[in-house]
Amino acid sequence: MSALARRGDLLRLSSLFVRTLREDPADAEVASHKLLVRAGYIRRAAPGIYTWLPLGLRVLAKIEAVVREEMDAIGGQEVHFPALLPREPYEATGRWEEYGPNLFRLQDRKQADYLLAPTHEEMFTLLVKDLYSSYKDLPLTLYQIQTKYRDEARPRAGLIRGREFVMKDSYSFDATDGGLDEAYQRHRGAYERIFQRLGLEYVIVSAMSGAMGGSRSEEFLSPSPIGEDTFVRSAGGYAANVEAVVTPVPAALPYDDAPAAHVEDTPDTPTIESLVALANAKYPRPDREWTAADTLKNVVLAVTHPDGARELLVVGLPGDREVDLKRLEAALAPAEAEPASDADFAKHPELVKGYIGPRALGPQGAQVTQQDGSAVSAVRYVLDPRVVDGTRWITGADEAGKHVFDLVKGRDFEADGTIEAAEVHAGDEAPDGSGPLELARGIEMGHIFQLGRKYAQALGLQVLDVNGKQVTVTMGSYGIGVTRALAALAEANHDDRGLAWPAHVAPAHVHLVATGKGTEVFEAAEAIAQGLSANGVEVVYDDRPKVSPGVKFADAELLGVPLLLVVGRGLADGVVELRPRAGEARQVPVAEAVAEATAEVEALLA
Amino acid sequence: MSALARRGDLLRLSSLFVRTLREDPADAEVASHKLLVRAGYIRRAAPGIYTWLPLGLRVLAKIEAVVREEMDAIGGQEVHFPALLPREPYEATGRWEEYGPNLFRLQDRKQADYLLAPTHEEMFTLLVKDLYSSYKDLPLTLYQIQTKYRDEARPRAGLIRGREFVMKDSYSFDATDGGLDEAYQRHRGAYERIFQRLGLEYVIVSAMSGAMGGSRSEEFLSPSPIGEDTFVRSAGGYAANVEAVVTPVPAALPYDDAPAAHVEDTPDTPTIESLVALANAKYPRPDREWTAADTLKNVVLAVTHPDGARELLVVGLPGDREVDLKRLEAALAPAEAEPASDADFAKHPELVKGYIGPRALGPQGAQVTQQDGSAVSAVRYVLDPRVVDGTRWITGADEAGKHVFDLVKGRDFEADGTIEAAEVHAGDEAPDGSGPLELARGIEMGHIFQLGRKYAQALGLQVLDVNGKQVTVTMGSYGIGVTRALAALAEANHDDRGLAWPAHVAPAHVHLVATGKGTEVFEAAEAIAQGLSANGVEVVYDDRPKVSPGVKFADAELLGVPLLLVVGRGLADGVVELRPRAGEARQVPVAEAVAEATAEVEALLA
Repeated sequence: MSALARRGDLLRLSSLFVRTLREDPADAEVASHKLLVRAGYIRRAAPGIYTWLPLGLRVLAKIEAVVREEMDAIGGQEVHFPALLPREPYEATGRWEEYGPNLFRLQDRKQADYLLAPTHEEMFTLLVKDLYSSYKDLPLTLYQIQTKYRDEARPRAGLIRGREFVMKDSYSFDATDGGLDEAYQRHRGAYERIFQRLGLEYVIVSAMSGAMGGSRSEEFLSPSPIGEDTFVRSAGGYAANVEAVVTPVPAALPYDDAPAAHVEDTPDTPTIESLVALANAKYPRPDREWTAADTLKNVVLAVTHPDGARELLVVGLPGDREVDLKRLEAALAPAEAEPASDADFAKHPELVKGYIGPRALGPQGAQVTQQDGSAVSAVRYVLDPRVVDGTRWITGADEAGKHVFDLVKGRDFEADGTIEAAEVHAGDEAPDGSGPLELARGIEMGHIFQLGRKYAQALGLQVLDVNGKQVTVTMGSYGIGVTRALAALAEANHDDRGLAWPAHVAPAHVHLVATGKGTEVFEAAEAIAQGLSANGVEVVYDDRPKVSPGVKFADAELLGVPLLLVVGRGLADGVVELRPRAGEARQVPVAEAVAEATAEVEALLA
Repeated sequence: MSALARRGDLLRLSSLFVRTLREDPADAEVASHKLLVRAGYIRRAAPGIYTWLPLGLRVLAKIEAVVREEMDAIGGQEVHFPALLPREPYEATGRWEEYGPNLFRLQDRKQADYLLAPTHEEMFTLLVKDLYSSYKDLPLTLYQIQTKYRDEARPRAGLIRGREFVMKDSYSFDATDGGLDEAYQRHRGAYERIFQRLGLEYVIVSAMSGAMGGSRSEEFLSPSPIGEDTFVRSAGGYAANVEAVVTPVPAALPYDDAPAAHVEDTPDTPTIESLVALANAKYPRPDREWTAADTLKNVVLAVTHPDGARELLVVGLPGDREVDLKRLEAALAPAEAEPASDADFAKHPELVKGYIGPRALGPQGAQVTQQDGSAVSAVRYVLDPRVVDGTRWITGADEAGKHVFDLVKGRDFEADGTIEAAEVHAGDEAPDGSGPLELARGIEMGHIFQLGRKYAQALGLQVLDVNGKQVTVTMGSYGIGVTRALAALAEANHDDRGLAWPAHVAPAHVHLVATGKGTEVFEAAEAIAQGLSANGVEVVYDDRPKVSPGVKFADAELLGVPLLLVVGRGLADGVVELRPRAGEARQVPVAEAVAEATAEVEALLA
């Protein structure tokens, strides 16, 4: 059966609500954002909030249709939740607080608290609790394609990180862990088919589940240099979001023969480089040169908890690595972290900037007695997992111009714990030993999670099992960023002249251009447009009478419809030109134009 | 061409996400609300905010498709605006204030003001201003089908007055008044076709444009006893929303021979009835009996302006009529009105409850000097238009137990103006003289407005006209309550056993019930279900193995699919039963069941 509809839409540029722009919008940094605005697909309404113009809406509808079909194919049932929701269910699971400033909150006229939902775990859980009561009702998969809200601190890259966006979110409900595994695999398969049908390259990476809780979790990334997510992969098949990379922990070292720690003068060494240079010059190591990896850098961060409480946290890590804020935040979620401010430092005179050492931190530093009588570190100190017992370090001596050498972990200092916060380097060993890692960037298109029983427990979703016993339901949560997928498609399919959509998601199949002043050109083009439409081909027809061929061709390339059909000078010789957006032009007899173009479109859609 | 799709959805009740309820939900007052909840189409998420379950979402999608097709057919181009919008455009037109507490307002993390849009006039105006600049770009009609928000004081009747709801809103843009008239007529025609296709009876009535400004305006009402709108119509063809009824003003009367006003004792006459009875007993009128229409009732109201300011307003009207709060509010919009409270009265001791007369009010009462030096009435006094010069009244004497007789308008008192606030009575003459009015109630399904240049002026939307001169664009605004239309359809199509959808909007065409325990029943039903689906017929198949026939039939009637097909006892004799939701059953040979049911569905859809 043909992929074409009974009748194809015919969009005339003389009346289509679109205006192309020759200049990039001032606030746009990435190609998809620039081109979607310039080609008249979207317009900015507020930071991170966009209006969809007719061409953009057509692409969005096609993406939604693919998502819907594949969700239906795995037995998903579509529902639709409100975006405006009462506080209570989110209060019950703790997310009202945890979301912190990322949640749009408001009050109604009776001062009742509401939110604009960023995801709907609570509501789905409560709905299933409302309707279902037996294991026989399960398994169940529900989904919606819905507008979601997130008050991003830094909305950026157009549709890629917006504050109002469309998501497909689905949720699976099972009585057993095995059932959840199956639902997870079904979604994984559906996601693969969705991204394949959309013509979107993807990588599946292991992911942290972050604030969502739960166990197994993978992300579908579209590899792109402008992606916000860094992921790693090894030749041996390991792939993970950089937040999910677990540092292989080296074995502890013996330190019985280690020299005692000794403080040395290290004036003017505020950086690791200057410290290493001075150490090699003044305190050379007999066996080899000192390197940055011999130093223990202590990075002071301010952590803000969802309730607004702010505390200092010092991360100790080898001096050849920086703290990766995204890995840090994933480890600390739902708390947020940022570099400590001068005001933070002012409250802790024991922290000597540039010369901070473990001996002022964590268990070695000042202690605070809690309400229950137990003592905790005044400044919490956590270590990179590589800093194992027996490792020897050059690190700050808590005095300006001085560092301590041969400070041994396990002998001279301890910490309050470890943290996965050091940046991952290309060449690091994969956690599963499958070889060195390479790093790449990607746009997160989809995310599948095994939530487990967290939400069902918090909201009391139980069913009777085979033995008539109440059991808590186990859930999965699965998302696709629909508007973000559109941007990723634009990002992956463009050149410097404009967009170049895959045929399945293009706003039309053929961009028909009539060039010239004679009525015969427009009459021939009109006949072709009607013929294509009757064949089910969707046509953008540039029927504007007084626009130059140059402008028409530039607009065609900017809009990015896959097949260009030009009716112009050749008409006198009985031919028109057929040119794929990214291919070679060929002449076609005018009488065969409709049939040839239809055949090419069918080939593109096959 | 058949109205059926290539393949009809097959929904199995054994796995469909639906649970029917035998009891009405406690908070539901009207049939559509009760039945949509009981039949598992919607669930309440918060007051006036609903979740759509699979069956409800299917009906909603079908209604949306009809609306979309007819909007496309009049050249409407679909766009999609955000629901979350910045304050500024609404500030520019004054609506940020005017909406008062009906607007959901919120702040983002940077304390910028946002709203959840109730309508999008401002955004459409700004978008067209952004893209278009010449009269040649016009006419233009844009529309969206989108989720809207309104913080109703009293959400009620389920979907009929919700706080989150789906609307189709469209806007026309023209350079000339004639163009606006044409756009208005095109929409009027499209709306007629939409409601006809949906199978929804409608009345077109003249309407006030209320807070929207503008000139010509009509509403499409679905006549229903539970409707919130009262409308009137005359045999001669007049039809109007009750808020839009203009009182025919009688001619002024000569009053040279009228007796002087005289105050009489009227003890214990707090009501009009008691006053009329006493007047007839103690002060009989020579020519005829006194009636309520001879008294002038002065009703004290408190008016709250969008900025929160509260003032008293007294409406003087013949004693045989009450103030109609909806007509009053339409006349006062965007201000809101309610009966004055005891606290309001306490501030105005000159108002003697039960005995208030014109002589304490308006120009006759206390005056207040304004900042600019002019004087205004301390208590504003407005009259029903029937109270013309020369009319003689019995009315309060501003003293307990006393009324004044023969008080003549134009001689003894004046007012600050007139107001259309008196209730309209059945039998009142139509404003156009087309006969007496009858009153009925309806649900407002659609509204078409000639906005004119209000928004274009406020936001600077101009185009160059034929002569190269900047002219302000004139606009129309046209709405259909999509979710409300669904409720109106349920309201108009149900009986005491459940819903009874018109075929075009039903969630499926055939409800197939297998009754009995033998596998042959389920095998035969399964084959029929597959056959119907292959024919493009949408089927709800009740394949539940252990559910009694009684429950299955009750569920079928509750769900309201137009055609019931029963595979049960008759199967042994080679027949199945075909029964329209509201018709007679007939036996059909099992071999012909698919063909017969398909033919009936095609007839229903024709």
